[in-house]
Formats: sequence, C-alpha cells, structure tokens
Amino acid sequence: MNKKGLLLVFSGPSGVGKGTVLKEYLKAHPNTAFSVSATTRSPREGEVHGRHYFFLSHEEFQSLIEKKGFLEHAQFAGNHYGTPRKAVEESLEKGIDVVLEIEVQGALQVKNQNPDAVLVFVMPPSFEELHRRLAGRGTEDAATVERRLSNAAREMEAAKQYDYIIVNQTVEEAASQLEQIVCAAKHTAGYLNEFIEEVEDDAKTCCK
Amino acid sequence: MNKKGLLLVFSGPSGVGKGTVLKEYLKAHPNTAFSVSATTRSPREGEVHGRHYFFLSHEEFQSLIEKKGFLEHAQFAGNHYGTPRKAVEESLEKGIDVVLEIEVQGALQVKNQNPDAVLVFVMPPSFEELHRRLAGRGTEDAATVERRLSNAAREMEAAKQYDYIIVNQTVEEAASQLEQIVCAAKHTAGYLNEFIEEVEDDAKTCCK
Repeated sequence: MNKKGLLLVFSGPSGVGKGTVLKEYLKAHPNTAFSVSATTRSPREGEVHGRHYFFLSHEEFQSLIEKKGFLEHAQFAGNHYGTPRKAVEESLEKGIDVVLEIEVQGALQVKNQNPDAVLVFVMPPSFEELHRRLAGRGTEDAATVERRLSNAAREMEAAKQYDYIIVNQTVEEAASQLEQIVCAAKHTAGYLNEFIEEVEDDAKTCCK
Repeated sequence: MNKKGLLLVFSGPSGVGKGTVLKEYLKAHPNTAFSVSATTRSPREGEVHGRHYFFLSHEEFQSLIEKKGFLEHAQFAGNHYGTPRKAVEESLEKGIDVVLEIEVQGALQVKNQNPDAVLVFVMPPSFEELHRRLAGRGTEDAATVERRLSNAAREMEAAKQYDYIIVNQTVEEAASQLEQIVCAAKHTAGYLNEFIEEVEDDAKTCCK
C-alpha cells in the first residue's frame, strides 16, 4: 500500500473561518503536519519565528527562490510569502500528511508541480453570510469590510479550479467534511498507483 | 446547493466481494437506488424479472439501443447487457443517488457520457488473496478458478481509469470507505458547480 503522506492545500476567502476549521481538524489528527510559511514581512505583535512564520530578509528569501527552495511563492502588498519545500517533502516521504494554508495563486502553483496534491477551498454558505461574519467581527470599519468582501469575491473565482469544496456552515461539520475528503483522497487511483501496479504484476506472473 | 443525485459506478473482478460490499452500503443507505440491468440472456433459477434483471428479447434490446434507451451496453458471451437510461436519469433528477454495478467496458462508456459519474473499483488486498477467495468457494474446479483469475487480471488492468479504489479487506471497512467516497464526491467543485456560481453571482452584485 502507498505509504506516502497526502499533500493538502487549504484556501478560502478571509472571514470564511478556514483557520478555525483547520485547527479543529488538526486537533483530531495530531500526526498531520502544518507547513509554516516563510515571509519577508515584519512580525506582528505576538508572532513567533518558526511557529507563525519564518521571518526572512529579502536577500534570504531571494536566495531560497534561486535554490528552488520553495514549493510555491507569491507577492502580496510588496511582501513575499512562500512554502519551504524541504520540510514538506521530508514529511510526505515519511508518510505524514502535510497541510498548507495558502492563497489561491500559490495553491495553483502547487497543483501544477504536484498533481497529486489535493486542493480544498472553503466557501461560506452564502455571500450574505460572509458579509455578516466579516461585519460581525466589529473590529473593522465599513470601508475595510467592503475591501475584504471585494477580495473575497475575487478569491472565490478560483474555487472551480480546486478539487473539493467545503461549505462552512458549522466548524464541526466542516472539519468532518475535511476528514472524509482526506480519506477519499487516499483512495484515488492516482494515490494508490503503486498498489495497483503491484497487484497487476502479481496477476501477470500468476496468469502467464 | 446541488440537489442532483450522484451517479456511482461500481466494478471489480469476480470474487472480490463487490456485491457484498454494495449490499452492506445499501442497507445503511436505503434511499440510494440500485439500477437493475437489462439482458438478453435467459433467467437462471430463482432470478426475478425487474429485480435481478430485466429479461428482454434480442429484438426488444435492439430497439432500446436504437432509441438511445441505454446509458451503456455491452456484449458478453453472445448476450447483451445494458443499463436502462430512463430510471437512472429520473432518480438523479429527484436528488436520489444511483448505483450501477457493471463491467469495466460499460463503466468507461458511462464516464465518457457523464463526466460527473464517480467510478469506484474494488480490488482485493493482493492477487494471492483473490486466488484464495475464488478457490475457497469450493464450488468450482481448478480450471474454472484459473479462468476466473485470468479474467480478474484482465479486468484489473482498467483500475487506473477509475476515480477511486476500494481495497476489500473486510466488508465493513470497504462499505465505510465507500461512504466516505460518496460524501467526498458530493464536495467536488464539479458537483457543487451550481452552488459556486450562485455565490459568485451574489458576490458580483454586491461588490460592483
């Protein structure tokens, strides 16, 4: 049987609650590795190097790009963000599932390079509900909410290019959907390719 | 949300136990419809028209082919077998999942016509195990077992063209894998296409 871990890419618009869903899933699956991104932006208060992000200088980031040290990388508002390749590949080889929580642009880069990666997009039950959730935080003014909604609309245009869609009605339901998706993804013909070939080879030897 | 039923195509080599797995799944999901095939072969003892098969004459079968009345049809050992289209499409429209238990050749025809169909192939844990299961029935002589094994080897060559693979270790485990696959298949971007478009349209109206 295939012993390689599953590469899971998790995206969704800001405010949809994808971080909470992922936290719930990881609590139930502590053996799954969460990939820590690298960035050139400055740490915010409370952010810990190596836990929230690897905070790199522009030179360090550029040098890693040149060494093909990123699975994907992208630029937002003048800062670079990227997924360090080595830790991800080592975990997968050991049979450990790895989750990346990244933007649409990076997700499609990953799929392009690793067709076996499973792309999951978290959607709100409706656009009105996303509006309510963003406004309901109460921490942002109307203009910020509008800007986030408009970003969300743009991000959701990529949903169709993802493999699976989770509709986040409740956190528990969404985490359980993710669980089913991970199990099913480990039963695709692509993931079980080596196993299929083994059985086929035995069949050939036996039935010649 | 998408209310259309899922079209599930179930195949696997003779002796792998796919009928038993399906029976276990259908017991837990009595709302799923099982498609009864049509055939030109004669009923065996105990077989009931409309339950095990629709037994048709060659003329009736040919006339249904001409009216495009089959989702798929194929010929084995001089007899025709086919899936009547109407009952399947009516159930799907009503939001009822439909299972077809058919051969590889027909399964690939269905996928070709209905890219949304989910193809599931049941494999034995190993080829030796399939040998044991076929021989263990004790109802067939060695030559028959050899012929079935050789058929199984040929059938399994198509496994890679299926969407999902179930490895039948135990019936309960295999039925539960099928359950997860059905749930995940209802969360693909293809299946949820209408829902995605609805949310996108709302987003456009809201953010213009």
